[in-house]
Amino acid sequence: MTATRFFSDNAATVHPLVMEAMARANIVDTAYDGDALSQSLDTAFSALFETACEVVWIPTGTAANSIILAHFVRPWQGILCYEEAHIEVDECGAPTFYSGGAKLMPLPGQGAKIDAEALKARIAGIRKDVHQVQPAAISITNATEYGLAWRPEEIGAISEVARSSGLKLHMDGARFANAVAFLGCSPADVTWRAGVDALSFGFTKNGAMMAEAIVFFGGSGGAGVRELKKRGGHLLSKGRFVAAQIRAMLADDLWLDNARAANAGAAALAAACRGRLMYPVEANELFVRLSAAEAAQLRSAGFDFYDWGDGAARLVVSWDQDAQAVAPLAAALLAL
Amino acid sequence: MTATRFFSDNAATVHPLVMEAMARANIVDTAYDGDALSQSLDTAFSALFETACEVVWIPTGTAANSIILAHFVRPWQGILCYEEAHIEVDECGAPTFYSGGAKLMPLPGQGAKIDAEALKARIAGIRKDVHQVQPAAISITNATEYGLAWRPEEIGAISEVARSSGLKLHMDGARFANAVAFLGCSPADVTWRAGVDALSFGFTKNGAMMAEAIVFFGGSGGAGVRELKKRGGHLLSKGRFVAAQIRAMLADDLWLDNARAANAGAAALAAACRGRLMYPVEANELFVRLSAAEAAQLRSAGFDFYDWGDGAARLVVSWDQDAQAVAPLAAALLAL
Amino acid sequence: MTATRFFSDNAATVHPLVMEAMARANIVDTAYDGDALSQSLDTAFSALFETACEVVWIPTGTAANSIILAHFVRPWQGILCYEEAHIEVDECGAPTFYSGGAKLMPLPGQGAKIDAEALKARIAGIRKDVHQVQPAAISITNATEYGLAWRPEEIGAISEVARSSGLKLHMDGARFANAVAFLGCSPADVTWRAGVDALSFGFTKNGAMMAEAIVFFGGSGGAGVRELKKRGGHLLSKGRFVAAQIRAMLADDLWLDNARAANAGAAALAAACRGRLMYPVEANELFVRLSAAEAAQLRSAGFDFYDWGDGAARLVVSWDQDAQAVAPLAAALLAL
Amino acid sequence: MTATRFFSDNAATVHPLVMEAMARANIVDTAYDGDALSQSLDTAFSALFETACEVVWIPTGTAANSIILAHFVRPWQGILCYEEAHIEVDECGAPTFYSGGAKLMPLPGQGAKIDAEALKARIAGIRKDVHQVQPAAISITNATEYGLAWRPEEIGAISEVARSSGLKLHMDGARFANAVAFLGCSPADVTWRAGVDALSFGFTKNGAMMAEAIVFFGGSGGAGVRELKKRGGHLLSKGRFVAAQIRAMLADDLWLDNARAANAGAAALAAACRGRLMYPVEANELFVRLSAAEAAQLRSAGFDFYDWGDGAARLVVSWDQDAQAVAPLAAALLAL
Repeated sequence: MTATRFFSDNAATVHPLVMEAMARANIVDTAYDGDALSQSLDTAFSALFETACEVVWIPTGTAANSIILAHFVRPWQGILCYEEAHIEVDECGAPTFYSGGAKLMPLPGQGAKIDAEALKARIAGIRKDVHQVQPAAISITNATEYGLAWRPEEIGAISEVARSSGLKLHMDGARFANAVAFLGCSPADVTWRAGVDALSFGFTKNGAMMAEAIVFFGGSGGAGVRELKKRGGHLLSKGRFVAAQIRAMLADDLWLDNARAANAGAAALAAACRGRLMYPVEANELFVRLSAAEAAQLRSAGFDFYDWGDGAARLVVSWDQDAQAVAPLAAALLAL
Repeated sequence: MTATRFFSDNAATVHPLVMEAMARANIVDTAYDGDALSQSLDTAFSALFETACEVVWIPTGTAANSIILAHFVRPWQGILCYEEAHIEVDECGAPTFYSGGAKLMPLPGQGAKIDAEALKARIAGIRKDVHQVQPAAISITNATEYGLAWRPEEIGAISEVARSSGLKLHMDGARFANAVAFLGCSPADVTWRAGVDALSFGFTKNGAMMAEAIVFFGGSGGAGVRELKKRGGHLLSKGRFVAAQIRAMLADDLWLDNARAANAGAAALAAACRGRLMYPVEANELFVRLSAAEAAQLRSAGFDFYDWGDGAARLVVSWDQDAQAVAPLAAALLAL
Repeated sequence: MTATRFFSDNAATVHPLVMEAMARANIVDTAYDGDALSQSLDTAFSALFETACEVVWIPTGTAANSIILAHFVRPWQGILCYEEAHIEVDECGAPTFYSGGAKLMPLPGQGAKIDAEALKARIAGIRKDVHQVQPAAISITNATEYGLAWRPEEIGAISEVARSSGLKLHMDGARFANAVAFLGCSPADVTWRAGVDALSFGFTKNGAMMAEAIVFFGGSGGAGVRELKKRGGHLLSKGRFVAAQIRAMLADDLWLDNARAANAGAAALAAACRGRLMYPVEANELFVRLSAAEAAQLRSAGFDFYDWGDGAARLVVSWDQDAQAVAPLAAALLAL
Repeated sequence: MTATRFFSDNAATVHPLVMEAMARANIVDTAYDGDALSQSLDTAFSALFETACEVVWIPTGTAANSIILAHFVRPWQGILCYEEAHIEVDECGAPTFYSGGAKLMPLPGQGAKIDAEALKARIAGIRKDVHQVQPAAISITNATEYGLAWRPEEIGAISEVARSSGLKLHMDGARFANAVAFLGCSPADVTWRAGVDALSFGFTKNGAMMAEAIVFFGGSGGAGVRELKKRGGHLLSKGRFVAAQIRAMLADDLWLDNARAANAGAAALAAACRGRLMYPVEANELFVRLSAAEAAQLRSAGFDFYDWGDGAARLVVSWDQDAQAVAPLAAALLAL
């Protein structure tokens, strides 16, 4: 934990309980994903989501997103998403790579949420012929790239469009924990109950080291998921160390506790940013209006963060920075 | 460590010094590969190999092999390799995936070593037109899939063919440490000095958790390597934990010590297998003639290992199984 | 020729001189592209473009565009283009397929021309890291998708951005002849002299049967072009019949005559559409405001064409429809 | 027709009836494959094959093979075939390209026929895990690369292995006509009745200009076939000219007449090659033992053909070279 680092939750520390679980996993077991920890994931996630889940661990969110999407679309098909979605702008084309050529089809949106009506119109505008790429999946991110949590009914509106057009619905949950912590709902409410077919459930930003879960709801991810994991070079031989992280994060709701801490830190900062906020603060990210001079002043006080275009900045609070930890930055912001 | 597990070094434990290094890395640092540990790898490997190296960490050997080969070949070209090479039979087509379609072009060989003359003849037999796939790289494995170490002059003969045909030479070094430990040579002698252009330097089987190094000799791996690492989903956000493993393995020659221990264990087993050995035992793998009854007898005594077709078995000794640790199995083999 | 078909020049007849040339090619010759006609293309195009050209025939424009672009970009890179460019919306993802995964990066524009300043800003907005897809090529279409001809200086402005950013410049010339016919310039003026690196020179819409030329200016297209042509299944064994079409189109400037005829037809229609035109009519396409009732009236008179969204229509004049041939439609338009 | 060219049927002339049909097709019609000729193919082939067929025209055999195989296998799967199959050695990796990465898995065979028992053993030898590429299709060539015709019962043995292993069976019929002409059977007997799922039906070598048919038996080729045709750049805008060739070849069994002529020519040559034949001559290709001196003697007399390694040559007879046309070569062979 540091009281000065707000550029990303990506580089946060690993929670001590996760480190301990990894140490405990340092015994001989079956290679790849044949070990007891890896084999326990289906059951663990099925309990958490209150439905039968098929789960595959994977070291990164980029791989999680790409493998799920590659499972849902064929090489000549497309993936509808928000125009600043991580899969569109921050993964070096990974979903296209894993799918063998699928096209990302970006849509505008408010607060990084695509709109169900605009989505419907976009789909309707595609000629149903072989000249135009036909979408086969929709991907949304929860919490969004601008730190907002999708409500169950908002997801339901998107999934209704998906169903009526024969598309699969994927949720990029790099910060899924932060969204659930904010909403106070069951994980099921913002996933399968709202029509989500598969989730990239992120743990790395939230206290793990390199551990994400590919979660298929209500049955099998079918052919291709495990093959792509291997073919992509993600089937670690000592896979038990990834599964151990995930089990540690699920135990006693550590994933929720960590997310709540980060959200609380963000809320504390938000209170110090009234008038500056570009979006409501629901998860662990703040987008604030900040002049160049103000940004320089904060940086000279030791705080680091990313500029967000001109006159704005992004502040990200990590799981190890709760309301108390962010107090110095909050004070500095109020003092501007 | 167990005295009974000989099915693979893939599932071995992680060396305590590696675990400690990972624990020490659990501080806030820059994300991805911008941290100090990741940035130190070029220097560390350049010292070890006595030449300027460009190094990229990567979590798996499959990814290391695939990204190097994808850097060397274009999608319409080919990769010459031994017909049972890991890249040909055990990676679910990963090199073809990462290269965007390159063809594996398998060759026979003794002890999993391809022969320079046969290689030359194979290349000569390919029509130089657009109808036939033209090779652009050769991949050899050291130690080989049958546990033999390539000698510098053997590698030199292959690299001479490579140079004269305009091909790049890749070495899959999943068990590179075991080969170097056996040969007692400088790492340089069996790599760039013998004409190798890039090495997949494996640490995972040899005491790390998930850490391999992509090593380009004598300059840059150029465009594409880092892009493919990201695009393939291997740019872990907390990458310092991978770099830490590698630095721990390099410190005080832990990589060599571990390999020597495994080799010594294999040598002790080999002494108990006279008359059964299908290949000389140079690294940490033994391929032994074993009847079904004998195999059953060993298994009933608690030893596990893979059958290798009919009437044979593979025994792999891990870094945590030295000569003393394998004594029970040696005794059981002698007692057959 | 028909006086009623204005939905596309795609389905026009083949010019009699092309048919005759194909008949003359019906003799035994070397297979693939080893025949005398195929081998003559470099020379013929070098004369036409007043510079050394390397030329490959190809049956379709989709393949021409895709193979050139795949030659210019690596799988993890991007292609900047107008947001309604044919390569973006009408080729089922072919450039991504042929390049092994490159991303199309669409830009807005007036009359289907991208703007040099906007292009520069877009490139500047891409972070130079491995997370974001880096563009390696720009593709423009001449005549544009809205029937406008790029002027040499406009192309020069784009190519200056390309050069300063290290990008290659491709021109989709499906209707290149119509642009040159309108401008009355040398083909060189709107290609290599203005900084274009390669041209898809279309003949099919302009009187050929299935014949386009991939033209690289000032030297070799290098490795990959011929391999991709074969690998894509476009190396027809009786390739002389494609080369024959191209030679017939070049002979006595048939390509220009045909384009002039189509342009003249379009101009005649344009004169009947004053007040309705959405864009100036420079080539052989018209985009006209037309109410649903007016469109229905024209169709009931036998004319066919595509609607272009609500309240608009696209009219395309083919090489076999000159000013005289379009007179009935012109009259009908005036009579609305 | 020439009496001296025996290097390939690839470069033969186009039959006059095909040329006439193309001339007749030079009228305005719908673009792409919406024209009446293209739309008539399902019916025409369904009649020929005595079962419901779904048919797509395509300009080359490489594209036909690749698109069918890409329809049958996923990128991470494999295609079993003869080790010298055209798809393995002469298509620059096209099936891997179109399928997004599928692996060709070559098998030995007599006369270019793979053996059902060897096939079964090969499949059994593949571990059913994600590390090894799992085959999803088998491809055989009829007539084979060595000019032999697969008998219905031989195909049946292969298709039985296919069915029991869940694999699809593809037939490369570049010289399908020659095989059927030799066997004197119904086209159905050596295709769907024997268990073939899809056929690349070649017309180009047999008198067409650039026309092959992708034929799916007993129902739909389903999603992907038409998309890949477009995405690969094979959906010619004036597609009616390809469909016209195919209809002309089917009319009055021109395809069979042409094949019979070529086969008769080959049989006449075979009679002059007793003692030299490496394989029985069943179709239109001969593989003959020929010393370098003998080959030189024939060439000095004006005959051209390919050497087939040392001491052997390949002679291919085209549709326009019947028994009478090959008489000079037959005489020259006898005179050696």
